[in-house]
Amino acid sequence: MKAEYINPFILATKAVFETMLNCPLERGQPYMKEGNQPEHEISGIIGYSGRAKGSVVLSLSRGVALGAAKVMLQEDRSVIDDDVVDTVGELVNMVAGAAKAHLEELELRITLPTIITGKSHCVEFPSRVVPICIPFHCQWGDVLVEYGLVEETEESLVAS
Amino acid sequence: MKAEYINPFILATKAVFETMLNCPLERGQPYMKEGNQPEHEISGIIGYSGRAKGSVVLSLSRGVALGAAKVMLQEDRSVIDDDVVDTVGELVNMVAGAAKAHLEELELRITLPTIITGKSHCVEFPSRVVPICIPFHCQWGDVLVEYGLVEETEESLVAS
Repeated sequence: MKAEYINPFILATKAVFETMLNCPLERGQPYMKEGNQPEHEISGIIGYSGRAKGSVVLSLSRGVALGAAKVMLQEDRSVIDDDVVDTVGELVNMVAGAAKAHLEELELRITLPTIITGKSHCVEFPSRVVPICIPFHCQWGDVLVEYGLVEETEESLVAS
Repeated sequence: MKAEYINPFILATKAVFETMLNCPLERGQPYMKEGNQPEHEISGIIGYSGRAKGSVVLSLSRGVALGAAKVMLQEDRSVIDDDVVDTVGELVNMVAGAAKAHLEELELRITLPTIITGKSHCVEFPSRVVPICIPFHCQWGDVLVEYGLVEETEESLVAS
């Protein structure tokens, strides 16, 4: 895990929230995730394959998910329904895609998102991965971006 | 979503449980997932990219996760700790890899697993994907495999 990957994920998240949602993000201090800490109420996950393998998680508090859905759908939402789930899927897709564009040398390809709902769910990575967490805050509440990437050796690329 | 993809996932799951855990699986009736139904207590997720994009989810009841960990670790476990999380990550990795081998024409590559813990978490797919669920039962309890795959057009492959 190279610390240099942090910037692409910071830039990607800020750009998506600012351009798609007109919502500036205030960034907290990034940290290495240890133990299983509960996520916010709804989390979108997208996997990467290529010269590195891994995933990015965009975890949103309820207020952020509903606020983002209101902007994207141009309609108020008061519960986390299928449209809100799709909004979170689209947001993590855009964050993953924008970060990928900053990481050209890894030749990453992204998968479809899955979206996790349920209070106090935890998203965990295999123990050989040390995920990095980047906390943000915005007008609607808290946002957490987590990513874990492992670079592939030439040998494992041939086998995978 | 082609129904023909069901067999690779059935064969892969049965083979992994039989060969790695010496645990025969009894299969229930596959169905299309509708609405958000809670998963079992711990779920491993792996993404695919290639000529199709998507994910496979292996969701295990607590008893199955602990039973599988006991076999893989050769030690009793009574709580879902990091070793149990890693066991579930390895199992979904093997299921995803075995299914991929049956789907050669899609030239799939897999990502690293993420593992979701927390009672009554739900795993949801974007609304344009209709995930297929395949329920199984074994000596330790219930197992659910879900997958959602969308074939890529030539155009989207160039852009992705």
